Amino acid sequence: MRLVALAGGTGAAKLLRGLDTLLERGAMTVVGNTGDDAEVWGLHVSPDLDTVCYTLGGLLDEERGWGLRDESFRTLGEMVRFGEPTWFNLGDRDLATHLHRTRLLAEGRSLSEVTAKLAADLGVRHAVLPMSDQPVRTRVLGPDGWLGFQEYFVREKTQVEVRAVEYAGAPEARPAPGLVEAIGAADAVLVCPSNPVTSVGPILAVPGIVEALHGTRAPVLAISPIVGGRAVSGPAGRLMAARGLPVSALGIAQGYAPWLDILIIDDEDAALAPSIEAAGARPVVASTLMTGRVEEMRLARRILETLA
Amino acid sequence: MRLVALAGGTGAAKLLRGLDTLLERGAMTVVGNTGDDAEVWGLHVSPDLDTVCYTLGGLLDEERGWGLRDESFRTLGEMVRFGEPTWFNLGDRDLATHLHRTRLLAEGRSLSEVTAKLAADLGVRHAVLPMSDQPVRTRVLGPDGWLGFQEYFVREKTQVEVRAVEYAGAPEARPAPGLVEAIGAADAVLVCPSNPVTSVGPILAVPGIVEALHGTRAPVLAISPIVGGRAVSGPAGRLMAARGLPVSALGIAQGYAPWLDILIIDDEDAALAPSIEAAGARPVVASTLMTGRVEEMRLARRILETLA
Repeated sequence: MRLVALAGGTGAAKLLRGLDTLLERGAMTVVGNTGDDAEVWGLHVSPDLDTVCYTLGGLLDEERGWGLRDESFRTLGEMVRFGEPTWFNLGDRDLATHLHRTRLLAEGRSLSEVTAKLAADLGVRHAVLPMSDQPVRTRVLGPDGWLGFQEYFVREKTQVEVRAVEYAGAPEARPAPGLVEAIGAADAVLVCPSNPVTSVGPILAVPGIVEALHGTRAPVLAISPIVGGRAVSGPAGRLMAARGLPVSALGIAQGYAPWLDILIIDDEDAALAPSIEAAGARPVVASTLMTGRVEEMRLARRILETLA
Repeated sequence: MRLVALAGGTGAAKLLRGLDTLLERGAMTVVGNTGDDAEVWGLHVSPDLDTVCYTLGGLLDEERGWGLRDESFRTLGEMVRFGEPTWFNLGDRDLATHLHRTRLLAEGRSLSEVTAKLAADLGVRHAVLPMSDQPVRTRVLGPDGWLGFQEYFVREKTQVEVRAVEYAGAPEARPAPGLVEAIGAADAVLVCPSNPVTSVGPILAVPGIVEALHGTRAPVLAISPIVGGRAVSGPAGRLMAARGLPVSALGIAQGYAPWLDILIIDDEDAALAPSIEAAGARPVVASTLMTGRVEEMRLARRILETLA
């Protein structure tokens, strides 16, 4: 079983960890969102790629849901003295990742080469690809102008009315080397339970990726990140509403309709199954809330059974 | 009293701290050696400038004699995973300095602009200049080839036979803006008790600085870093020998002869006074070992009395 998984951050990482326990080494190719990459203190930070790698490497801080376990913030504490921004929480252990990534990029290596090395060094047993080697940056239009995604998400804690979302640079970007081929050769493509607007949206905005989803013979299966009319976590609900999508599993089915084959929806949303079917996807009802390792594995197993 | 001080690392920083307690804010212009600057993890590290600024800002780790107090090394601990070199001890608090410097340099600001900002942010009450805005790198020829200064000093712990020393880039370098003017306008120029080959030597190698020492009306006063035929600290003795200089206060007088007016030598070396005078400098005998704050201030006071 060769799986390709389009992934955002926390929700995706949990599902991938569940799948990792059930699959052979190297069975997955994770395609990570880099639309929320940011430059912090001159360093290239890739929050979604890092969350995936830290989680699959067994290094994640489980309580916070991001960053490394047993973290400290002593460099950050000193940055106050120099007037550097301190709203983006870069930990001391975490800094090693960003320093290493930035140094290799400055040497001329591509983001996909660097990501492959970081994933291997962090102990990930699967391939991890950025969606593109070219910069794509998700930006959000608030009442006072455009914000970078991390400004919106971390600095403003999403408490800004969103009038538009754009993926700057996407038209010029190309899928990372091997990405389209991996989708073509996969036994299944998963769209993780991630924010459809700011996690999956940037991936789909890279020219060639939607075409690959259309073209592949493999079933494309998504897991709805919306349960009972609300996002399991994060601002997905408000962002879907801003895009004119119903904030429900049906909205997910409609957003992904052109290329989606199967949508996993939560038990709570079982009543939506007929309308999802009408939207063109086969609904599969499951328990989708990943509140612990057992629930992650149960959902992963259900997905593999569905694809079998 | 306006002083210009040519400075290396630890010994210079102690003397400057002693002088700082006796002088008004802004009375000193410290010219720091950048020949031992290095790139570590993609960051621009300036060890001598930082030792001076941390010491004058009251932030130095007194036990180690370098870096910041209350330091930790958690980023460094993670670098093992990525195969990055870990022999250069960059602390977590210290990293903030190097990140900020590197980011400002990458924005196109000059090393002297960045050094001025760092010194002010770190609480230094005097002007701090790098010797040059252009890169000059001290290199040491060992039995197996050329080593960067930090490779020789930190990685190899100076346990390498030195066959030659060079200051790469010096012929193309220019004195930092304002440096020559400061020497010209000074009431006195100090050459701190620093390694004459690898701390003061790179400063003197920048075209225009020796000419400024020749041209200034101010007395030029050096403090011998050699006491009783041995360097107070570090590899100065072996490096002077490799250069063919006597390892003594007399060797210092001979090395600096063309422009030196006064040489402070230790009580222990009082017998060398006549030969130092013969070498062209006025010898002043003093207690030069700076084993604590009291001794630093005593030496500083003796220097100011000599210049009065």
